[in-house]
Amino acid sequence: MVRAYEIILKKRNGLALTGAEIDYLIKGYAAGLVPDYQMAAFAMAVYFQGMSREETLALTMAMVQSGETVSLADIPGIKVDKHSTGGVGDTTTLVLVPLVAAAGVPVAKMSGRGLGHTGGTLDKLESIPGFRTDLSREELADQVRRIGAAVAGQTANLVPADKALYALRDVTATVDSLPLIASSIMSKKLAAGADAIVLDVKCGDGAFMKNLDDALALARAMVEIGRGAGRETVAILSAMEQPLGRAVGNALEVEEAIKTLRGEGPADLEELCLVLGGQMLCLAGKVPDPARGSELLKGLLGGAALNKFKELIAAQHGDARVADDPSLLPQAPVRLELPSPAAGFVQRIRAESIGRSAMLLGAGRETKEDAIDPAAGIVLLKKAGDAVKAGEPLAVLHTALDPASPRVEQARRMALEAYEIDAAPPAASSLILGAVGA
Amino acid sequence: MVRAYEIILKKRNGLALTGAEIDYLIKGYAAGLVPDYQMAAFAMAVYFQGMSREETLALTMAMVQSGETVSLADIPGIKVDKHSTGGVGDTTTLVLVPLVAAAGVPVAKMSGRGLGHTGGTLDKLESIPGFRTDLSREELADQVRRIGAAVAGQTANLVPADKALYALRDVTATVDSLPLIASSIMSKKLAAGADAIVLDVKCGDGAFMKNLDDALALARAMVEIGRGAGRETVAILSAMEQPLGRAVGNALEVEEAIKTLRGEGPADLEELCLVLGGQMLCLAGKVPDPARGSELLKGLLGGAALNKFKELIAAQHGDARVADDPSLLPQAPVRLELPSPAAGFVQRIRAESIGRSAMLLGAGRETKEDAIDPAAGIVLLKKAGDAVKAGEPLAVLHTALDPASPRVEQARRMALEAYEIDAAPPAASSLILGAVGA
Repeated sequence: MVRAYEIILKKRNGLALTGAEIDYLIKGYAAGLVPDYQMAAFAMAVYFQGMSREETLALTMAMVQSGETVSLADIPGIKVDKHSTGGVGDTTTLVLVPLVAAAGVPVAKMSGRGLGHTGGTLDKLESIPGFRTDLSREELADQVRRIGAAVAGQTANLVPADKALYALRDVTATVDSLPLIASSIMSKKLAAGADAIVLDVKCGDGAFMKNLDDALALARAMVEIGRGAGRETVAILSAMEQPLGRAVGNALEVEEAIKTLRGEGPADLEELCLVLGGQMLCLAGKVPDPARGSELLKGLLGGAALNKFKELIAAQHGDARVADDPSLLPQAPVRLELPSPAAGFVQRIRAESIGRSAMLLGAGRETKEDAIDPAAGIVLLKKAGDAVKAGEPLAVLHTALDPASPRVEQARRMALEAYEIDAAPPAASSLILGAVGA
Repeated sequence: MVRAYEIILKKRNGLALTGAEIDYLIKGYAAGLVPDYQMAAFAMAVYFQGMSREETLALTMAMVQSGETVSLADIPGIKVDKHSTGGVGDTTTLVLVPLVAAAGVPVAKMSGRGLGHTGGTLDKLESIPGFRTDLSREELADQVRRIGAAVAGQTANLVPADKALYALRDVTATVDSLPLIASSIMSKKLAAGADAIVLDVKCGDGAFMKNLDDALALARAMVEIGRGAGRETVAILSAMEQPLGRAVGNALEVEEAIKTLRGEGPADLEELCLVLGGQMLCLAGKVPDPARGSELLKGLLGGAALNKFKELIAAQHGDARVADDPSLLPQAPVRLELPSPAAGFVQRIRAESIGRSAMLLGAGRETKEDAIDPAAGIVLLKKAGDAVKAGEPLAVLHTALDPASPRVEQARRMALEAYEIDAAPPAASSLILGAVGA
């Protein structure tokens, strides 16, 4: 493809590409006309030369147009989608779907499965006995009209260019390029049809973006794309110096979501859910400002929010009794305590290592074909700032694997290495680091 | 290939690669284990991050080892190879093979065909009626022992990694990277088995390297590789602000070589041949310094050098009478004069445009399958510094194509555009710009 060559050369030389050029490249790639090797060279050139705001928007729109798009126009109200940029033990979606719906804002959530340390939102909900996520497009809309919330698997072929490009970036060391990350995330959000988008950009060791400057730049780039595409978009920056909440694993996170909806969840998870939910309510026009949205949502915890979750579970054929009795969720046969090797204070917990450990225990997929153990995962008993005695358990590993197996041994070692313990208490730190576009 | 990923990432991040890593990557690529898309990303990372002297040598040696190598050990004497880095109308090899052999230094030249504005050395010699270049390895050695010179086609599978990598770079905008250019050229020279190497690095509009700094850097890199590989290597930097000599085309260049061997060639071509040949004689141990080598060679023009060319032609079954009567060479049926659009002085002649024009007239190949017209090409009547009247012919186009065809019209326009004419004479300039390692 001679024209693809010219486009690579232009980007390599630091010149700005036109919308038509980007369109040609992405659609040609999706159609199999531009080969992987040209796209790989292009991605590496973008890594070094970056992309302007206009180029990044054009890239995103070209990716959106590479496949089908979803319309939510037949569902009444302003539909607000929420997305978190990676992170470990992120139970926010499970909490926010019923919580925001309880406030009267319709939530039509379509999720993928994907690879990761734990399953996706679909896998987590499917750990509830009987829960079905294979709703047709009609069933989804009907259910949202009826009870205000539904969660279903993606049926459409959304953003095939991103699927192909992401797989290519993954093997050519071109994942961590800001415009490529921003356009990848936003193309999927835009194709999924929401009217407005709330982004939760994680920042820290366990996230894509390791420091605040990078996270801010990513948040700005995504908000610009969203607005450039005509969708109200807000980004919240949140710390990922340790996993959010205490649970990492599918059924374990459902249980934690239930606790949180009851008003008894971990403080950090509740705080982030109220902040993100407040933004969602504000974008939906339900409240004049996000703070009032958070307040409104806080008042719903315990009663209305938990009831909405029960309604959601029942509507999707799940056993709603789990909301009152989480022991009905799958339980791991083996529970291994992780004793602290030293006395002191937990400084931080490397989220990446906890995630890898949970995956080894059976909570996540390494390849698409892997089965997930819904009961497997990790519960963090101690979090940053907590005092701990030598020998006192830091966490509990849940698994169905032989506790003497090398795999469990490795999981245990990784989880232990995740904990940083020191004699002095750590400096206090904030969970919410900032907002863009709010 | 996970390991290829790590190597791309390391280079992308500006870290130095080990010899083992480079070896793994290049041999894996040659074996088809490392896919094109990873190699393309790697090449683009090298474009931006460069390579150290050690990395460039390791890359070159890994490429050499990707295929067969030639030994010239059975041919007596110190075999000196010569290579020019691109350029248009470069007749130096045709002159140097008989000239250096006439001085008593054996020349066993193995050439490729390749693509280009005109054919390669093989194509040029094959424009002599009857000339055969399909010598076996035995015939080549025998002929060198007998008459001191032979030119044959490459039979071995030399440097397949370079063939594949060059084709990939060509379509991914990663050709103009200094370490990649240097290793590509030098891997082929090292694999071809010469004891010493004289490089002619062209500098200017018509060359890879557009300015003296870049040309010097390339020359230094190549000399370092050659010496790192244990071969005496010298580089001469020569100006390419206009085509060398007056002829561009296969038979036309043979005719020009004959004139030069007779001592009646264009001054610039003769000068460069004497400089390069002087270096070759010096590296072969024939003379104590290059200047004396040039002097010795100048004395051979007219007599011994022309006779050696006749011997060479006859030994390879060609019609040696062409050396006395060049009209026996293929002649183009159509000759079109290119009248000057203005009076003044020729400032320079863009070599690239002249080359493209010659190719359109039939002198070169655009694809491997194209046939070459041995008679086609361009003879430059006016060169830089020459005064010209309006309407006076600047050049003559030689072709077998219909002079009224759009292709010939385009060739004429390109040749005309190559000429820069101004009222004042240009500043005097040197052909030889410097030397590295001499």
